[in-house]
Amino acid sequence: MLNHVSGVLNADELIKMALREDISNEDVSTNSVMPDYELGTVQLICKQDGIICGLWVFERTFKLLDANTQVKAYAKDGDEVKKGQLVAEIVGDIRVLLSGERVALNYLQRMSGIATYTHQMVSLLKGSKTRLLDTRKTTPNMRIFEKYAVKVGGGCNHRYNLSDGILLKDNHIGAAGGVKNAVLKAKQYASFVRKIEVETETLEQVAEALEAGADIIMLDNMSKEDMKAAVKMIGGRALTECSGNVTRENIAQIIDTGVDFVSSGALTHSAPILDLSLKNLHPVTVK
Amino acid sequence: MLNHVSGVLNADELIKMALREDISNEDVSTNSVMPDYELGTVQLICKQDGIICGLWVFERTFKLLDANTQVKAYAKDGDEVKKGQLVAEIVGDIRVLLSGERVALNYLQRMSGIATYTHQMVSLLKGSKTRLLDTRKTTPNMRIFEKYAVKVGGGCNHRYNLSDGILLKDNHIGAAGGVKNAVLKAKQYASFVRKIEVETETLEQVAEALEAGADIIMLDNMSKEDMKAAVKMIGGRALTECSGNVTRENIAQIIDTGVDFVSSGALTHSAPILDLSLKNLHPVTVK
Amino acid sequence: MLNHVSGVLNADELIKMALREDISNEDVSTNSVMPDYELGTVQLICKQDGIICGLWVFERTFKLLDANTQVKAYAKDGDEVKKGQLVAEIVGDIRVLLSGERVALNYLQRMSGIATYTHQMVSLLKGSKTRLLDTRKTTPNMRIFEKYAVKVGGGCNHRYNLSDGILLKDNHIGAAGGVKNAVLKAKQYASFVRKIEVETETLEQVAEALEAGADIIMLDNMSKEDMKAAVKMIGGRALTECSGNVTRENIAQIIDTGVDFVSSGALTHSAPILDLSLKNLHPVTVK
Amino acid sequence: MLNHVSGVLNADELIKMALREDISNEDVSTNSVMPDYELGTVQLICKQDGIICGLWVFERTFKLLDANTQVKAYAKDGDEVKKGQLVAEIVGDIRVLLSGERVALNYLQRMSGIATYTHQMVSLLKGSKTRLLDTRKTTPNMRIFEKYAVKVGGGCNHRYNLSDGILLKDNHIGAAGGVKNAVLKAKQYASFVRKIEVETETLEQVAEALEAGADIIMLDNMSKEDMKAAVKMIGGRALTECSGNVTRENIAQIIDTGVDFVSSGALTHSAPILDLSLKNLHPVTVK
Amino acid sequence: MLNHVSGVLNADELIKMALREDISNEDVSTNSVMPDYELGTVQLICKQDGIICGLWVFERTFKLLDANTQVKAYAKDGDEVKKGQLVAEIVGDIRVLLSGERVALNYLQRMSGIATYTHQMVSLLKGSKTRLLDTRKTTPNMRIFEKYAVKVGGGCNHRYNLSDGILLKDNHIGAAGGVKNAVLKAKQYASFVRKIEVETETLEQVAEALEAGADIIMLDNMSKEDMKAAVKMIGGRALTECSGNVTRENIAQIIDTGVDFVSSGALTHSAPILDLSLKNLHPVTVK
Amino acid sequence: MLNHVSGVLNADELIKMALREDISNEDVSTNSVMPDYELGTVQLICKQDGIICGLWVFERTFKLLDANTQVKAYAKDGDEVKKGQLVAEIVGDIRVLLSGERVALNYLQRMSGIATYTHQMVSLLKGSKTRLLDTRKTTPNMRIFEKYAVKVGGGCNHRYNLSDGILLKDNHIGAAGGVKNAVLKAKQYASFVRKIEVETETLEQVAEALEAGADIIMLDNMSKEDMKAAVKMIGGRALTECSGNVTRENIAQIIDTGVDFVSSGALTHSAPILDLSLKNLHPVTVK
Repeated sequence: MLNHVSGVLNADELIKMALREDISNEDVSTNSVMPDYELGTVQLICKQDGIICGLWVFERTFKLLDANTQVKAYAKDGDEVKKGQLVAEIVGDIRVLLSGERVALNYLQRMSGIATYTHQMVSLLKGSKTRLLDTRKTTPNMRIFEKYAVKVGGGCNHRYNLSDGILLKDNHIGAAGGVKNAVLKAKQYASFVRKIEVETETLEQVAEALEAGADIIMLDNMSKEDMKAAVKMIGGRALTECSGNVTRENIAQIIDTGVDFVSSGALTHSAPILDLSLKNLHPVTVK
Repeated sequence: MLNHVSGVLNADELIKMALREDISNEDVSTNSVMPDYELGTVQLICKQDGIICGLWVFERTFKLLDANTQVKAYAKDGDEVKKGQLVAEIVGDIRVLLSGERVALNYLQRMSGIATYTHQMVSLLKGSKTRLLDTRKTTPNMRIFEKYAVKVGGGCNHRYNLSDGILLKDNHIGAAGGVKNAVLKAKQYASFVRKIEVETETLEQVAEALEAGADIIMLDNMSKEDMKAAVKMIGGRALTECSGNVTRENIAQIIDTGVDFVSSGALTHSAPILDLSLKNLHPVTVK
Repeated sequence: MLNHVSGVLNADELIKMALREDISNEDVSTNSVMPDYELGTVQLICKQDGIICGLWVFERTFKLLDANTQVKAYAKDGDEVKKGQLVAEIVGDIRVLLSGERVALNYLQRMSGIATYTHQMVSLLKGSKTRLLDTRKTTPNMRIFEKYAVKVGGGCNHRYNLSDGILLKDNHIGAAGGVKNAVLKAKQYASFVRKIEVETETLEQVAEALEAGADIIMLDNMSKEDMKAAVKMIGGRALTECSGNVTRENIAQIIDTGVDFVSSGALTHSAPILDLSLKNLHPVTVK
Repeated sequence: MLNHVSGVLNADELIKMALREDISNEDVSTNSVMPDYELGTVQLICKQDGIICGLWVFERTFKLLDANTQVKAYAKDGDEVKKGQLVAEIVGDIRVLLSGERVALNYLQRMSGIATYTHQMVSLLKGSKTRLLDTRKTTPNMRIFEKYAVKVGGGCNHRYNLSDGILLKDNHIGAAGGVKNAVLKAKQYASFVRKIEVETETLEQVAEALEAGADIIMLDNMSKEDMKAAVKMIGGRALTECSGNVTRENIAQIIDTGVDFVSSGALTHSAPILDLSLKNLHPVTVK
Repeated sequence: MLNHVSGVLNADELIKMALREDISNEDVSTNSVMPDYELGTVQLICKQDGIICGLWVFERTFKLLDANTQVKAYAKDGDEVKKGQLVAEIVGDIRVLLSGERVALNYLQRMSGIATYTHQMVSLLKGSKTRLLDTRKTTPNMRIFEKYAVKVGGGCNHRYNLSDGILLKDNHIGAAGGVKNAVLKAKQYASFVRKIEVETETLEQVAEALEAGADIIMLDNMSKEDMKAAVKMIGGRALTECSGNVTRENIAQIIDTGVDFVSSGALTHSAPILDLSLKNLHPVTVK
Repeated sequence: MLNHVSGVLNADELIKMALREDISNEDVSTNSVMPDYELGTVQLICKQDGIICGLWVFERTFKLLDANTQVKAYAKDGDEVKKGQLVAEIVGDIRVLLSGERVALNYLQRMSGIATYTHQMVSLLKGSKTRLLDTRKTTPNMRIFEKYAVKVGGGCNHRYNLSDGILLKDNHIGAAGGVKNAVLKAKQYASFVRKIEVETETLEQVAEALEAGADIIMLDNMSKEDMKAAVKMIGGRALTECSGNVTRENIAQIIDTGVDFVSSGALTHSAPILDLSLKNLHPVTVK
């Protein structure tokens, strides 16, 4: 989960690259009208209801341009924010406020959008034992931000990437010669700290996975009835994950299947942004 | 526009970073079941109707893992594709096909999603003189891919970043002391190859912008009546751009305002992906 | 234009690379005679008359080695400096002063050399309406410094690079099938924020460029008479740029042609350095 | 000396950076008029007499954009070239020829300018035993190219950087408490593979340096008489290097002093470029 | 496990950096005696008995300098090699063979040393159910090579790094307020694909870990009797790992404790290299 | 020699890479039990007698994660440390102490191991004039740390890499056509600041090297008698270096050969680590 340590090590370089993507040599507009240093302040205003997420990244974007920039936040990641709400005030060199605005907002809006969407889906699961998972269907070079947003929105993170978790999918199963072989090969190969997850599409495959000792069994695109039957067959001997085009529109039907987890790529690949904006920029006088 | 030259210079490193984001040391699942080289093939299948975009990036993802991978495409960027359609076949080391799949699809799905959304909005403008523009509200470190997708979808690109275009917004205007001053300062400062665009919110500001000699006048969040009045006042002496939360749902009302351009952040910040998938992986025999 | 924002984003990494080019593992000479920390000061002395330019880069070079280094400047970029003049004093770890000296001076001397040369050429244009432009004939990986030096010297910047401006040269015209086609293709393709410049070598081409609606017409290697005729023909409907081996020696003859701009590659590819030197290093006592 | 090994390891990344400096996202002009692949050829023509240098870098620039580009050279580094001479022909994707042109020429012109200037200075030393050295007054991030050009022009390379050679200058001597101490400290500290060079400004310092066992004694800004006296005093017990604002204009007076080496910063900091140009671009038909 | 995919993504850059560490601007010795291309061959000879490991890295080092270099291997990773044995022959540009030799051998010798040491320790465990694990006590920026060498030597890999496995050590336990709390917090926080391992130093802690549902229990620096008692108490409900200064000299005493795994930092932090050398370089004639 | 300047320029990036190697996205264990900031302290305890080395790198590792971390050292590089000794105390964010621990120790243990091993070998040379040298047989991407450790342990550094020293080995000699030719070619080619070292295996080659004017003559794998004869023949006209599998076990026999230097690859390729550990982590209260 993104915090100062992983921020410095794993996020800073990405944020700097995003700034360079937006300023390949200079900010011509700002330099035209604001040639010299002037201290100013600007307000971060919410323009839609939702869950705020990404304030560290938002602040960091300005600080990477000028470490003296100050961000005073009136909310913290995970808070519900309302249209019109003042979320934070930023004080610093006006040129930095102007030049960093778009990148800071691009991160914040997207992360808040994902947290908001996740929060809505988690709410739809209320009352069930089923927890919501993300996937690897994240935007390239945005995973550290997007997986964090899922967590802030109330979801759980599935494996981070191909190196830290095993998930044997249809193509791996085909290559290994069946569910059982795939699981056994993974048990033999894999680091002993990892659980083995395997994808199944039929109850026969579920049985095979169980027998081979899979730790987690994914029920992929199964009917509601099959899912219930699978959960019953498994009987707690493995964790279960339901998967397959799950969105805000259809997640409710999972509730009473008894699966432990449901994963949704939509959380990260199709959540719309949460609209936020910087307003009321003006100079401030240092007393 | 992304092609081989900008691909090699400006996109390759981003694609490699995305691959490293997904494979920080190895693909444990694939290595479990497929320890050795085996030649195989897999099919790229469309699962939704839309506009395909990003085939160069899709292919490049695999080629950066192994230059011997072959992609045979049955469509080209900008083509309409249908649910169930075979879009391409990839032949190569099965481990490369498995390990590169997710990153290749993450790019392709997002780029195709943007092209599809753009295409829909462009269609809604048919019959008018107004052309559709993107914005800088792109995903961090995805701009080169997302701006390309807008163009493939039939849209036009606004400035690429803060370095290659001047757009004086409310905060710049405030800092400069009014629309006129802002435009004059930009004229004095800016490289002589750039046009000066200025944001206006009232007809008074439009008049001021015109008088100062702005090349492009943005009509920001104006009423339909004001936009029409502004276009009439300008009378072709500057280009006009309408801006402000334009989406698929509300773009139709722009049609008869007579503005030259309409810009929409939604193209890149809120377009859902186009669903695509790799199917039917199997070994192939080299004759 | 290079300032703190573009300095941090776009220049710092280049300065660090230059330092690593000069110190691939250690400064053997300094470490031989100065094994431990000792606070010292050194003076930056001008050894030739000219225009000083690059003081931010000069200071930054030392600060990247040790953020505690202090530079007290007695001049600012653009100032005329005289032989023997004390330009700045640097206070810091003597090892940092010794190890950073060469890189700091290499930047400062070259930038000041360009500013000085530019200033001389601008002086030769005094009394005319013609303004001086740079070109893309900059030293590789020095453009951000060299274009800034041109501006500090009183010149104007042409486009920064191939991405932020359109200039259709002979080879583009050949590829497009004539001046008119080239201009029309560029109008159709290019981002709407950019002006279209086209190179012409004859009055016929000037006429064609005008007709096609070029925003800027370059008069390349034309005779003085042709230039005057071209300027007259254009009559203010496009900007004009005179180009072709313009140096300190021959720029005077441009004055009465009436062109808006004259560009000179010599500014950045052949300006000699301005000689500057660090002198009088000695320890200082902290009270 | 730059060759394929150091080219791949130490130069390629710099060349790619220079290309990205010129193409931060795309070459708008070329993409306007040449949207698709077309095979073409262009000629490298010399526009001034001089020494050609940098053909590997010139070729590499295009190959880094497209490995299929072919360069047929009619001269090799170090050859004298004449105004109007055809130096090479390049065949490849016309877009690559257009987009790589400026960076390739910026390297080639600068390197050839240095080789030409060096060659002229070496010629002025003909008949003497004195050999010409470069300095560390190179352009930041250009040292590998500029030191190579000095060698191609007939000069010798002084140390590459602060890590691979010891040169105790006035400030080191001050810090160490005199010439003798400085030399002794360096002997004690330094890697045993390096010679110790020390700067002297008076005959007394020469004597002190000799006594301390310096391997090389720099005679800095000495009068011709003092240089002769120093050379005589040293009597072959150390190498001698004459230094101090040596240029084409004043080098002749060194000839009969008997110093082993003379170093000149002007070689790399003030040599004007050699003018070269790409001409006659046209499509070629593959038979 | 290092293979072509992870090699290209995760190892290539490290190998290039190692080459640049050894060749910061050129190989002076080689360039002195071998100015031009000449095809040659050299033999890789083993000078000690052991397990060979790292042939892909060895080959890659040369190929990164020149893709045309050919390596013909007479052994594969994991094979036992004998003193005097010819392991491989390399054919290529003699300058590449000379310049790449040291880096290629530095990798190969170290990886083979680790594989050899691991193999010896695995042999000492023969007859027991206990398997050998590595740790995170690897050389900085060598982990991908060293963990691979452990596997080639017959060992198992523990977690790759702090991101892909949970191991709650004494300090984590202190921070969490006891073994039980630590395990429960980790269960709540962690990605559902990871097992929870916890370090214990007493039988009481073992009991607490068991009760909290730890997946793996580390027995840290316990006496042989305590280890046996712990294994008995756990009774297969969790995996067991014995840890604490295990080396070739003392590993035998673990055999009959019944622990599932024993980990040894010595594998990667103190294994001596396996001596290998390049011999008999000579030119070859291409027929 | 590693100090603040070379640390910032040449070591920081390597340390950050090592941290990213260990934390590819987050420290899951620490984040599980320590979600928020808490100030704490931990002790660096020595677990073996030896020479401590690498305290700057140890401290820097934590500071790169959080610049506010404080390290209070009770020893300095080169000091003898005893088992059980408190070497330093670190105060900072507990999450930083936990997440940086392993990388900081991996560097410190390895550098101290090398310093300890070197110190032991230097002790064995006491009473002789022979000094101990390292080689280029360092761990890839660890050279700056390992060569420093040799120096701290009392050894001397041979050339840093292929760029800053000339050593003509058997293969170079073969390529050049004999010892004499090799030395002459190197004299002609090489920068005038470098000494020429040549490897010899027989007394005939020693004579040839002397005659050609080599500055340093390596006696490679010669018998003790031959070494003595060689030293006598050379008679101070060149430096001598003895080389060939020199270790702690066999170095004593070099003592009375009279060679100036003896080099040992074992210093860096086979020294075991010095065991050090972080203990007694606990929160501290800020008064």
